[in-house]
Amino acid sequence: MLWKRWLVGDPLKTAQAAHERLSKTLALAVFSSDALSSVAYATEEILLVLVPVSIALAHLSIPISLMIVLLLAILTLSYSQIIFEYPGGGGAYIVSKSNLGEWPGLTAAASLMIDYVLTVAVSVAAGIAAITSAFPSLFPHRTALGVFAITMVLLVNLRGVRESGKFFAIPTYLFIGTLLLMLGIGGIQLLSGHLTPVVAPDLAGQAAIESLSIFLLLRAFSSGCTALTGVEVISNGVSAFRAPEPKNAAITMVTMAVVLGTLFMGISTLAYHLGVIPKEDETVISQVARAIFGDGAFYYLVQAATMTILILAANSAFAGFPRLASLLARDSFMPHQMAVMGDRLVFSNGVIILGVLSCFLIVLFQGDTHALIPLYAVGVFLSFTLSQAGMVRRWLIKRGPHWQTKLTINGIGAIATAIATLIIASTKFSHGAWIVIVLIPLFILMFRGIRSHYKAVSEQITLDRRGARPPMPRRNIVVLPISGVNRAVVRAVDYARSRPGEVRAVLVDLDPEETAKIEIQWAQWGCGVHLIALPSPYRSVLGSLLDYIEEILEKEPDTWVTVIIPEILPARWWQNILHNQRALMLKAALLFKDRVVLTDVPFHLTR
Amino acid sequence: MLWKRWLVGDPLKTAQAAHERLSKTLALAVFSSDALSSVAYATEEILLVLVPVSIALAHLSIPISLMIVLLLAILTLSYSQIIFEYPGGGGAYIVSKSNLGEWPGLTAAASLMIDYVLTVAVSVAAGIAAITSAFPSLFPHRTALGVFAITMVLLVNLRGVRESGKFFAIPTYLFIGTLLLMLGIGGIQLLSGHLTPVVAPDLAGQAAIESLSIFLLLRAFSSGCTALTGVEVISNGVSAFRAPEPKNAAITMVTMAVVLGTLFMGISTLAYHLGVIPKEDETVISQVARAIFGDGAFYYLVQAATMTILILAANSAFAGFPRLASLLARDSFMPHQMAVMGDRLVFSNGVIILGVLSCFLIVLFQGDTHALIPLYAVGVFLSFTLSQAGMVRRWLIKRGPHWQTKLTINGIGAIATAIATLIIASTKFSHGAWIVIVLIPLFILMFRGIRSHYKAVSEQITLDRRGARPPMPRRNIVVLPISGVNRAVVRAVDYARSRPGEVRAVLVDLDPEETAKIEIQWAQWGCGVHLIALPSPYRSVLGSLLDYIEEILEKEPDTWVTVIIPEILPARWWQNILHNQRALMLKAALLFKDRVVLTDVPFHLTR
Repeated sequence: MLWKRWLVGDPLKTAQAAHERLSKTLALAVFSSDALSSVAYATEEILLVLVPVSIALAHLSIPISLMIVLLLAILTLSYSQIIFEYPGGGGAYIVSKSNLGEWPGLTAAASLMIDYVLTVAVSVAAGIAAITSAFPSLFPHRTALGVFAITMVLLVNLRGVRESGKFFAIPTYLFIGTLLLMLGIGGIQLLSGHLTPVVAPDLAGQAAIESLSIFLLLRAFSSGCTALTGVEVISNGVSAFRAPEPKNAAITMVTMAVVLGTLFMGISTLAYHLGVIPKEDETVISQVARAIFGDGAFYYLVQAATMTILILAANSAFAGFPRLASLLARDSFMPHQMAVMGDRLVFSNGVIILGVLSCFLIVLFQGDTHALIPLYAVGVFLSFTLSQAGMVRRWLIKRGPHWQTKLTINGIGAIATAIATLIIASTKFSHGAWIVIVLIPLFILMFRGIRSHYKAVSEQITLDRRGARPPMPRRNIVVLPISGVNRAVVRAVDYARSRPGEVRAVLVDLDPEETAKIEIQWAQWGCGVHLIALPSPYRSVLGSLLDYIEEILEKEPDTWVTVIIPEILPARWWQNILHNQRALMLKAALLFKDRVVLTDVPFHLTR
Repeated sequence: MLWKRWLVGDPLKTAQAAHERLSKTLALAVFSSDALSSVAYATEEILLVLVPVSIALAHLSIPISLMIVLLLAILTLSYSQIIFEYPGGGGAYIVSKSNLGEWPGLTAAASLMIDYVLTVAVSVAAGIAAITSAFPSLFPHRTALGVFAITMVLLVNLRGVRESGKFFAIPTYLFIGTLLLMLGIGGIQLLSGHLTPVVAPDLAGQAAIESLSIFLLLRAFSSGCTALTGVEVISNGVSAFRAPEPKNAAITMVTMAVVLGTLFMGISTLAYHLGVIPKEDETVISQVARAIFGDGAFYYLVQAATMTILILAANSAFAGFPRLASLLARDSFMPHQMAVMGDRLVFSNGVIILGVLSCFLIVLFQGDTHALIPLYAVGVFLSFTLSQAGMVRRWLIKRGPHWQTKLTINGIGAIATAIATLIIASTKFSHGAWIVIVLIPLFILMFRGIRSHYKAVSEQITLDRRGARPPMPRRNIVVLPISGVNRAVVRAVDYARSRPGEVRAVLVDLDPEETAKIEIQWAQWGCGVHLIALPSPYRSVLGSLLDYIEEILEKEPDTWVTVIIPEILPARWWQNILHNQRALMLKAALLFKDRVVLTDVPFHLTR
């Protein structure tokens, strides 16, 4: 308990849960880390598909990036409409559930949960890659560094991050600023012809252009689509904006999309003109920064800012996942304890589960961003598609002013994201997307299984308003099994006698001599409680006791049987193996008997 | 429970624990499987040390075997004296503890426990090797077969082997008979010059005689000493013989030693003259049998008899280990439940532990006899030495008729086994004996740790005969925490009211609206029990309850607090994750509070 307090801080009062309203400038910082941070790896992922086939294909990264920016524009427009329709926050789960029904809602929820875990894993892996690019000696420790980073973010989130916009503003704007500066200087160098291409690795063995398949192009496009993960975040947080909330949120979203598009296109263009080739131990963005700034302070600033914004992106999932889990828990699709706020006003269970799952992924994929990426985008785009499709359905039913235009916009969004989802799922299937495609239905089954259990429980425990109280036993016989007379037993006798009623001590007779000895002791210490010696032809203490209790239950159908067990509690946990084996067996045997209630009277050992 | 009955049979009455008295013929069968079975691997182990150095060294197996037979003679003589001195059974633990003191006794006990585990592992591995020699296609499945064999022996022993001598007599005498027949025919062939040597594997690359070191000779001797494991068994079971017990036991022991010596010498001699070389997938004894009998029915009979006696040897450890563990448990050196006889009149805990540990060894060493052997003999010989040393000490103190002669015999035994122990420990140290040498002190520490704990407990719970009864609280306040009104809660209310006394229902106020609703329901269902709403500024149900209970304990120093928890018991175990999380936390928090007693009132769900 002390440890917990030191790690996560003292409890907070409910009244302390005040919410800060964010200005557009601060909101951009708070909500955009997830989206903006993806420029740190998106260009690299495109090149990683093209370059291994032939270095001469690298120029294709430019048109592919343009396609992705176009998709970004479509998404931004579509999501602005969600912002105005769901000012209370329109996550994919809510939008698809309210418009399309339960199954699509659960599908969106499943994809989102998987996404949040992957957001943490991918962002942390890419953040660590930013560090190891600058300090290559750390490269072999990627996994450990990743787990450490997640643990830190986990602890911060268990303490509860007060939504302090300023805390986010500095690193986010630093990232935007340094990257824009880099792109500006790079652009000037490019236009003035002073851009020095990176010395490419030895490609003597490289074959000439091989057959360029459509599949390859689509796969590169799929990889680039990771740039768009996180663009929906603002639409979840409309209520945190200053009034008029929807308008401010929409303006912020457009601003974010412009910044994202600029950074992404800029990096792709510079990387191509610099002839950057993906390397295992240095990121593309690090190579670009090194080419433009040299090895000076500015280079390290770019790396530090990249790492920081990626960690913030991971942090944003720690807000989203527990919130989604609590929404699901309120609908009984997740265990109810996911909806319980801890004493730091945080859904601690969700935070811990997300931390554990993402650490697991980091360890499983050895902190390798490229290995994690194929799992990532498919869930994101599935939830995009379901949201847009939900909006289409909404306009068809609700109509209202300009509904045809709105329908068209969301319709285009739905079709575009659906196509992207199919492309990603098919081209990345064998690289890992299949894992997500298998997991989504399993999650849905789990959600529905949990709800049907809660339903069954509620039906069983709900009281019938008009019905009479079921008849219940009115008497209570206390049975106190002993195997000797000692302080623990005497304590249990005292406890049993502290409320009026019938108390019977029972002793299983294994050895007549021993039994006689105990009976004599009982005369002194038993306080007049009647001691019954049970015969035991099979030497089974448990069997004889069970038979005796069964007998009482049969004879007295109107009686509770309270079994009081004197239990010795050792001072150290491992000493339990030396005690209470019989008590444990007795408890297990009695647990499922109706009208039998167990009471342990602990006797605490001090050494 | 049904499964258990099917597997181990119905319980037996204490009165059914009759003991059969054994004739010498039957006793030889019952007690000699451990010793006799070791001829199945001892010769091979000697050759395995010599032959890899040079095939020309194989003839040294004859003098080494003679040395071992000499040691057997010394041991037999020494142990006959133990038989007469300890007619109730003189295991190494008892003999060393009663004559040398606690530390040597515990050392003997530790080596014996390790030995029993190894007896099972080695015997089963060698038994499986007998089968795979005959059916080489089974060779890759050694580990699985070994685990299967141990499981069968384990189950038979959980059922309880009635000491039916006849059950043991057939396979033991079959083994002795077939092996003597094989040695006889082989001997005639040898003397008549008709012995056809086995075609030796291609040894073209074999170097000439390399330096023959003393160390190598001693190592070969150590390996051969495994032939002597189990010779002490008869001295443990004197009480099972017909009167006059010691005399009959001694005669049986000498007979066994003669048979053992004959078989061992015979196999070593034949193996040498046949030029048998150890092979990975066929045992030496199988090669000898094949050379003499050909591939006919007699060959398979030898293999089957060998396998059977080895399984019986493993079985004998299942009698010894639990008995030793129960002796230790009675002296509080092992958990007391090791001394509890199960309903089949068997020390089931010991049987299960032995089965698990020996399976673990089989899996760890992949069912390979040769890998297990170096661990085996060191513990056996350490316990021999301690027994003999104990007898020496006994004669020095007790004296009596002919004590000088007896002293000399046990003295020679002690010195011979001590030297053998040192040889085995040093020459096999790096091959695995170090594991045993490390384990023995750890076991002793464990024994003493357990006893000192039991002593501390006994001091803490024993009642002071003359002392007055410690003052105890006389009142009892029942606290019933609820978070809603449902059937489970109503059941708990009924239980609480079934004994007279003060009952207080408490509700932690997390949400005023919800609280008001529950208070209205309570008016209908609460049976007049007072409901207290506790404020909870930190939303911590647990914290508020603990504060409230703490307050009662402080205000009323003369009162027990009974906390009745309405608990929902799901129909399936995994559903527990969806329930009772709070009850669990409450229990953990209250467990160490003095004067607080917990009572679960279960409500059983049916689906």
